[in-house]
Amino acid sequence: MTDKIKVGVYGGSGYAGQDAVEILAHHPNVELVFATSSTYAGDPVPFTSLRYIPHAEADLSTVQAVFLALPHLASAPVAARARAAGVKCVDLSADLRLDTPERFAKWYAHEHPHPELLPVPYGLPEFNRDQIKGADLIAAPGCYPTTTLLGLYPLLKNGWLLPGSPIIVDAKSGVSGAGREPKPNTHFVEVYGNFSPYNPGRVHRHVGEIEQEIFKLDPQAGLLIFTPHLLPVDRGLMSSIYVTLKDNYRSADAQALYQDTYHDEPLVKVLPPKQQATLKHVVKTNRAAISLTPVSDRYLHITSVTDNLRKGASGQAVQCFNLMMGLPETTGLL
Amino acid sequence: MTDKIKVGVYGGSGYAGQDAVEILAHHPNVELVFATSSTYAGDPVPFTSLRYIPHAEADLSTVQAVFLALPHLASAPVAARARAAGVKCVDLSADLRLDTPERFAKWYAHEHPHPELLPVPYGLPEFNRDQIKGADLIAAPGCYPTTTLLGLYPLLKNGWLLPGSPIIVDAKSGVSGAGREPKPNTHFVEVYGNFSPYNPGRVHRHVGEIEQEIFKLDPQAGLLIFTPHLLPVDRGLMSSIYVTLKDNYRSADAQALYQDTYHDEPLVKVLPPKQQATLKHVVKTNRAAISLTPVSDRYLHITSVTDNLRKGASGQAVQCFNLMMGLPETTGLL
Amino acid sequence: MTDKIKVGVYGGSGYAGQDAVEILAHHPNVELVFATSSTYAGDPVPFTSLRYIPHAEADLSTVQAVFLALPHLASAPVAARARAAGVKCVDLSADLRLDTPERFAKWYAHEHPHPELLPVPYGLPEFNRDQIKGADLIAAPGCYPTTTLLGLYPLLKNGWLLPGSPIIVDAKSGVSGAGREPKPNTHFVEVYGNFSPYNPGRVHRHVGEIEQEIFKLDPQAGLLIFTPHLLPVDRGLMSSIYVTLKDNYRSADAQALYQDTYHDEPLVKVLPPKQQATLKHVVKTNRAAISLTPVSDRYLHITSVTDNLRKGASGQAVQCFNLMMGLPETTGLL
Amino acid sequence: MTDKIKVGVYGGSGYAGQDAVEILAHHPNVELVFATSSTYAGDPVPFTSLRYIPHAEADLSTVQAVFLALPHLASAPVAARARAAGVKCVDLSADLRLDTPERFAKWYAHEHPHPELLPVPYGLPEFNRDQIKGADLIAAPGCYPTTTLLGLYPLLKNGWLLPGSPIIVDAKSGVSGAGREPKPNTHFVEVYGNFSPYNPGRVHRHVGEIEQEIFKLDPQAGLLIFTPHLLPVDRGLMSSIYVTLKDNYRSADAQALYQDTYHDEPLVKVLPPKQQATLKHVVKTNRAAISLTPVSDRYLHITSVTDNLRKGASGQAVQCFNLMMGLPETTGLL
Repeated sequence: MTDKIKVGVYGGSGYAGQDAVEILAHHPNVELVFATSSTYAGDPVPFTSLRYIPHAEADLSTVQAVFLALPHLASAPVAARARAAGVKCVDLSADLRLDTPERFAKWYAHEHPHPELLPVPYGLPEFNRDQIKGADLIAAPGCYPTTTLLGLYPLLKNGWLLPGSPIIVDAKSGVSGAGREPKPNTHFVEVYGNFSPYNPGRVHRHVGEIEQEIFKLDPQAGLLIFTPHLLPVDRGLMSSIYVTLKDNYRSADAQALYQDTYHDEPLVKVLPPKQQATLKHVVKTNRAAISLTPVSDRYLHITSVTDNLRKGASGQAVQCFNLMMGLPETTGLL
Repeated sequence: MTDKIKVGVYGGSGYAGQDAVEILAHHPNVELVFATSSTYAGDPVPFTSLRYIPHAEADLSTVQAVFLALPHLASAPVAARARAAGVKCVDLSADLRLDTPERFAKWYAHEHPHPELLPVPYGLPEFNRDQIKGADLIAAPGCYPTTTLLGLYPLLKNGWLLPGSPIIVDAKSGVSGAGREPKPNTHFVEVYGNFSPYNPGRVHRHVGEIEQEIFKLDPQAGLLIFTPHLLPVDRGLMSSIYVTLKDNYRSADAQALYQDTYHDEPLVKVLPPKQQATLKHVVKTNRAAISLTPVSDRYLHITSVTDNLRKGASGQAVQCFNLMMGLPETTGLL
Repeated sequence: MTDKIKVGVYGGSGYAGQDAVEILAHHPNVELVFATSSTYAGDPVPFTSLRYIPHAEADLSTVQAVFLALPHLASAPVAARARAAGVKCVDLSADLRLDTPERFAKWYAHEHPHPELLPVPYGLPEFNRDQIKGADLIAAPGCYPTTTLLGLYPLLKNGWLLPGSPIIVDAKSGVSGAGREPKPNTHFVEVYGNFSPYNPGRVHRHVGEIEQEIFKLDPQAGLLIFTPHLLPVDRGLMSSIYVTLKDNYRSADAQALYQDTYHDEPLVKVLPPKQQATLKHVVKTNRAAISLTPVSDRYLHITSVTDNLRKGASGQAVQCFNLMMGLPETTGLL
Repeated sequence: MTDKIKVGVYGGSGYAGQDAVEILAHHPNVELVFATSSTYAGDPVPFTSLRYIPHAEADLSTVQAVFLALPHLASAPVAARARAAGVKCVDLSADLRLDTPERFAKWYAHEHPHPELLPVPYGLPEFNRDQIKGADLIAAPGCYPTTTLLGLYPLLKNGWLLPGSPIIVDAKSGVSGAGREPKPNTHFVEVYGNFSPYNPGRVHRHVGEIEQEIFKLDPQAGLLIFTPHLLPVDRGLMSSIYVTLKDNYRSADAQALYQDTYHDEPLVKVLPPKQQATLKHVVKTNRAAISLTPVSDRYLHITSVTDNLRKGASGQAVQCFNLMMGLPETTGLL
């Protein structure tokens, strides 16, 4: 055990936290030291011989790294303490994803609890692997941003999108994305046999995060039209993306562009032409899958899928952790 | 409208209450005057032009009959007021199902709120239609009791069961049976892909109600072994019943016994030999369906199904209401 | 019984046919005389005392009207015989939906079996009620076209769409839309927990039908980008529509436009602002529901839902039948 | 790679075969050499770089062991060839589970294709680990038998059951147990929202297999009453077992009996008192879980669960393979 990295998970009983625990419990270079839970303190932690402890009882001096699967506003203070204690930290909450306190205040309707921490590297290795390597603190992206941004990345990076033309994202998420706390909209009877949009247009909080990263790569991109839907499955997320290309690019060439871009990416799979990405391609894996449909010369349809709790949350957090620790990037993830 | 019976529904936003409202809104002899809801007061009442009102604002002087789809302990006081006001009442809660205050105290761990109301006719028309006709106050049975008792009735009434031999009921219910209030065990993610027993053996509250009615018909019947399970569907309930017959009866003759017993029952269907009762036979209908499997000479297996919100709750309540009001028994139910 | 219209259903055991039978069995002005099925001949017809008969045994001289819920190419010959026999006919297949044999040949890769029948009134009462009244033969629209066209109608009719700008439709259908014949893609295990696009872009056969009707109303409309998905529910269909308005129209005004347009339509409900249309609004009803989201001044998002077997198939077919027969349009449908 | 055991899978595209491939692809001591499929020959084999080959193209001389996930009657001939070729073989079909050709003929209504192979060790390690070690050919049990027999084993082995008293098993299986070939009863729309018994009483083929093993351990056991049901989930199986104990045993003592019996079993978990075994305990794992409810002194209720494709099929087959090969029993299974 002496060679293993000692790790703690805050918020280990929520759905993202459970998957973080499951991945870390099987990770060959990790020793899981604690997992916290306010609701389930005292209960056994699955896949381990631990029991959940209250957040306040977690001792940062016993670990080298922590994962924060906490609600927003609750997460930043722990991140600040981890940084002060010299403990590496992957934050899965929204607290550190937006680069400025102003942007956070706009989308989360609350003053940022620790503005001195911003900005923090955005934990999407396919976008900014070099920033993540060796970082002490990482903001792991949300599930919708990860899935959507991976679906757009080759176009954004290479300037294929028609300037000012809207990027339309019709997204669908399994119910675990709504969290473990029982609410009327996650009651089995309400979800079963149903399919429903929520926060459509430009009001979902992830719009701010997605557009922030879009504009870094392509400042001329059009506005994001984003409609998330609740899908009656437990896990899995699809972003169905509709874009318009510049005149000098042809949708039929996008397949090669994507294959080239992601050729060496171990956790992003571009499907062959005519195959369609589905949830089954990714559920319970740490991968994204992408398929492309040239609709006409100028119009391209992209389907991007992840497991919202894996590549959309905890799997990606561990991918960042591996990079931060100098481990092979996919350790524990294949 | 002048000929219609004016009716109110207390607790009209819960799952049983919603179905009561839906049936009554289409009932040709009913005018729905109000539906109450503590949680959803002000919201539109589906299938009507009404809005939910708080319980306290319901005016008993405006109706001739009420349905009480309230939690236990909350229901009996309203039943008492309805009786005092001369308003006919079908109570769907557990408050009036057990014949004595002592039995209620045993199973519900609480003193009975209105012992002076007991006993009340048990609203299972196939058992005691004559008591229901003309009654002012009826205790509508629970979903497990209705389904189980209809599956046993011909055997109990005709003394076919081996005295002292246990009656084994392996029961499965859709999630609406657990109520509309969000709880951890009804969260979509917890139920999806799962199947789980709860309160097995002899501890579920419906055991008291089922045995009370069993022993009225067959005092020598053995004890009830009852295991309910949560089924990952929204509605539908199955009681899988295993019994031992007296030596002088043969399981192969049970088919004729059941067909004869239920021959004139409009809302109980005995399936032909070899066909199996399934949820699809009854979901969104007000009927029960029963199938029989002679396992060996002495052992009989019975499958009994209902929609837990219809024949297992609101459909049966309206069936009782029709009898109480002198209307044709199946009005609004076919 | 003497006043009732005698009706037959061809293909009464498929999913659309089953719903047609169910609606007609409860229709106060209809006597169902026969229902045909090649696979289930001899089995009881649900909701009736009939048994399915082979197609060849159906006698057109015994009925005044027929519904054809047959596969394409099998349907047109029966329609031709019905016309010859003076029997009114609602065809639910694709055979008569496209106005010309050339268009049929393009989308169905087969010569039209009865070109002399074309064109036939398209059975979408909200579009062309007057053509349907008194017609002898009607082509009932498909589920995707109905849902999509109702979602676009007020914009098309009033010329609000930016000429040449694409109409993006991300559509989702319950599995019954794929028919009752067992196929690998409708196996429970393949669908469960999955969500998958199929025939994306401009290749699904309904594209031809939708664009035909779009261009009748707005010849300047842009091309249709249409991605259907298989949704893991049994019934229900959503078209999520993204459009760009002309400069002189504002998305915020669309709510009033839709409410005005559909004000007197008994089977189309425009939801209030901020409410979102979901499958639960329409499943097992004969209605469509529509909600609107102004994304920005020029971009409008529309959610349109139907039950694919009701307003998307058999409910609408009966709506047409009522018009053809001079009955109140919603008879048997509320 | 030189140290790895070369393995082939026949029938690798069915549901049991897929799971065998998945487990073996991650097994540290296995090199998967081929996977056969009649239907999907040419398609990629998930989790590997192989493509499915037709059964006839599989070369037994290239492997040291094979798994047969073939239909009954198709499997025994391959087992015979494997034996002749000196290749170790785990047969997942029913062909070799019954000890005599007569018993096979009774339950499968067909002469046994290779009676000279019988009897073969029954691949349930918790029952007969010693027979499996070093064997060349093993009959892996079915899903219902595994789950039921593990639930009964401590009682049978220690003679706790009342002689002649029936063993009642109300069983529920996910749909993958019905195989991958599309059939009407596995169509998504037929299963969704439904729950249905099939082959109830004593007619399901697994009755013969279960009773064979019961009587080996307890010749005085009563007859098996066995009702399987189709559960609307993709995987997971529960046997709900109801038994009567001899007078000198008390149901309250069963907990200790089970804990002692399974104390050293790595793949059977006895839950603590009051906890109930559910599908979530075992789905996608290679374990069984068991919970006990003392109903009264003499009556005991047992809930036993497995993943029907894992401990109920391929996981257990690999467990047997590990024993046959002298590997640690749980290699690749935790």
